[in-house]
Amino acid sequence: MTDGPPGDDRVVVALDVGGTGMKCALVRPDGSVLHAERHPTDAGRGPDAVVETVLAVAEGLADRARAAGSTPVACGVAVPGVVDEAAGVAVWSANVGFRDVPLRDLVGARLGLPAALGHDVRVGGIAEARLGAGRDARHVLFVAIGTGIAAAHVVAGSAAVGAHGAAGEIGHILVRPDGPRCGCGRPGCLEAVSSASAVARRYAELAGSAASAADVAGRAAAGEELAGRVWREAVEALADGLATGQALYDVDTMVIGGGLARAGGQLLDPLRAALRERMTFHREPRLVAAALGDEAGCLGAALLALDSLERR
Amino acid sequence: MTDGPPGDDRVVVALDVGGTGMKCALVRPDGSVLHAERHPTDAGRGPDAVVETVLAVAEGLADRARAAGSTPVACGVAVPGVVDEAAGVAVWSANVGFRDVPLRDLVGARLGLPAALGHDVRVGGIAEARLGAGRDARHVLFVAIGTGIAAAHVVAGSAAVGAHGAAGEIGHILVRPDGPRCGCGRPGCLEAVSSASAVARRYAELAGSAASAADVAGRAAAGEELAGRVWREAVEALADGLATGQALYDVDTMVIGGGLARAGGQLLDPLRAALRERMTFHREPRLVAAALGDEAGCLGAALLALDSLERR
Repeated sequence: MTDGPPGDDRVVVALDVGGTGMKCALVRPDGSVLHAERHPTDAGRGPDAVVETVLAVAEGLADRARAAGSTPVACGVAVPGVVDEAAGVAVWSANVGFRDVPLRDLVGARLGLPAALGHDVRVGGIAEARLGAGRDARHVLFVAIGTGIAAAHVVAGSAAVGAHGAAGEIGHILVRPDGPRCGCGRPGCLEAVSSASAVARRYAELAGSAASAADVAGRAAAGEELAGRVWREAVEALADGLATGQALYDVDTMVIGGGLARAGGQLLDPLRAALRERMTFHREPRLVAAALGDEAGCLGAALLALDSLERR
Repeated sequence: MTDGPPGDDRVVVALDVGGTGMKCALVRPDGSVLHAERHPTDAGRGPDAVVETVLAVAEGLADRARAAGSTPVACGVAVPGVVDEAAGVAVWSANVGFRDVPLRDLVGARLGLPAALGHDVRVGGIAEARLGAGRDARHVLFVAIGTGIAAAHVVAGSAAVGAHGAAGEIGHILVRPDGPRCGCGRPGCLEAVSSASAVARRYAELAGSAASAADVAGRAAAGEELAGRVWREAVEALADGLATGQALYDVDTMVIGGGLARAGGQLLDPLRAALRERMTFHREPRLVAAALGDEAGCLGAALLALDSLERR
């Protein structure tokens, strides 16, 4: 983390572009937020229109920073999907509609500032590892569980990107060979069993009536047998996935975020117990809830932009 | 890799200590081998006796180097199990009998040389990634398949160690929830289905007669139905394990080593096809056989020692 001089007036323009909305902020080098705002993505308009909104919002934030007497020094943008961070290209972001969009250079040119492009979960992991629930650990696995499941392996504050910008796809590891087919086309992926959408789908299938994953968690806690069974199945598969992550990565701390983590102790308590059962020779990681909520992506985008400044 | 001046007479004393034997060598900074020798480990004598043999063999190699006009500059030792590389301690090497042995400092003191201690598979991965089958790739996963299965994730020539020296334990990821119980105590680990010992055990179970994994591979190739089935089951589970590795690590190249890899195309051809089937959004890694054979651990121990010299 870059610490500026006393009276540091530098800020980073940060945007976390999701399928539904964009979380945007002006972030100081110490990670504190000077200003935050949200905008709809409205992905149905097509990628060109979304890019134009990203650029206009970023420009507006930089103007606002200057008007407030601050100096915008960089811009960080996070997007989902496959991201080539070295090239600054959004390779494939299905729910935003991006395909090979050189977003880093587009933003940099519009703002006249150094820019960085990151993967939403990886930068979220960076933020949780440096500023959030993993801040005391050197080896952190951040796992975001929502509509999908993805992870970021963060060591000493940097997230592993992989050879093709696709590292950390823990949602697509096999946990149930006889399980439901995943959106990716393969059977039994973790995401097809333990994501919020998978929990809701499974409950609807068995109960014949719709309920969100949060509803299922609540009903399970209230003693409803069917909800309890669906919740347990999801937690057991999730523990299998995390145990695989621990066998391969060997981290100190696992930070659980995303929508499903809002279930709090209803998720973490049984998950911790199930993970413990699965630890044989490996050391059990500390399992904690994410601390930064849905601001993690935006903060992480700012951290990534600051890191890129340091490397220039 | 450190390149010395022309006429460089420096050598590294390198030992790869396994449950059965020790592979030992004098290795030049360019990775070429000046001299190699092997000794029995004879682990049944207890850890103190094994340590004394390690020290005596290392000392003998250093003397031999000097007698040949070379200058021993460091010593690298590789052991199996859980290794704390930063502390230089063999935390737990079941088949050698080590428990919390500060082997790095013991060797360093006996030889009066800087020393490094590494994990056998991780240093083997370093050697394959820098000098062997992965030398053109930046992101390499080395997978050693023998009695057990373990991996080393090597990026830019360095192997990930993890928070507790236990990263890369791909043998203990869940692939078959209904599968056989693993030596680690959990059901369905990759090692319990696809290791050389698992293949031999499964064949004996079904055929009622003993055969090595190599025999099973040969009989499968010759068209024996039962052997074909056992081999296919092992290859399919291995492909599931490698697909999980690719989802989490996202590498360019997977290098397959260990005893089972001696089956060559009988293993790699069906494994490559099965892995390809499992690649959906992820990029397919190049799948190749290890190039350094059972010298990889010894070469890697030398590389690790050279790396530690550079950091001093």
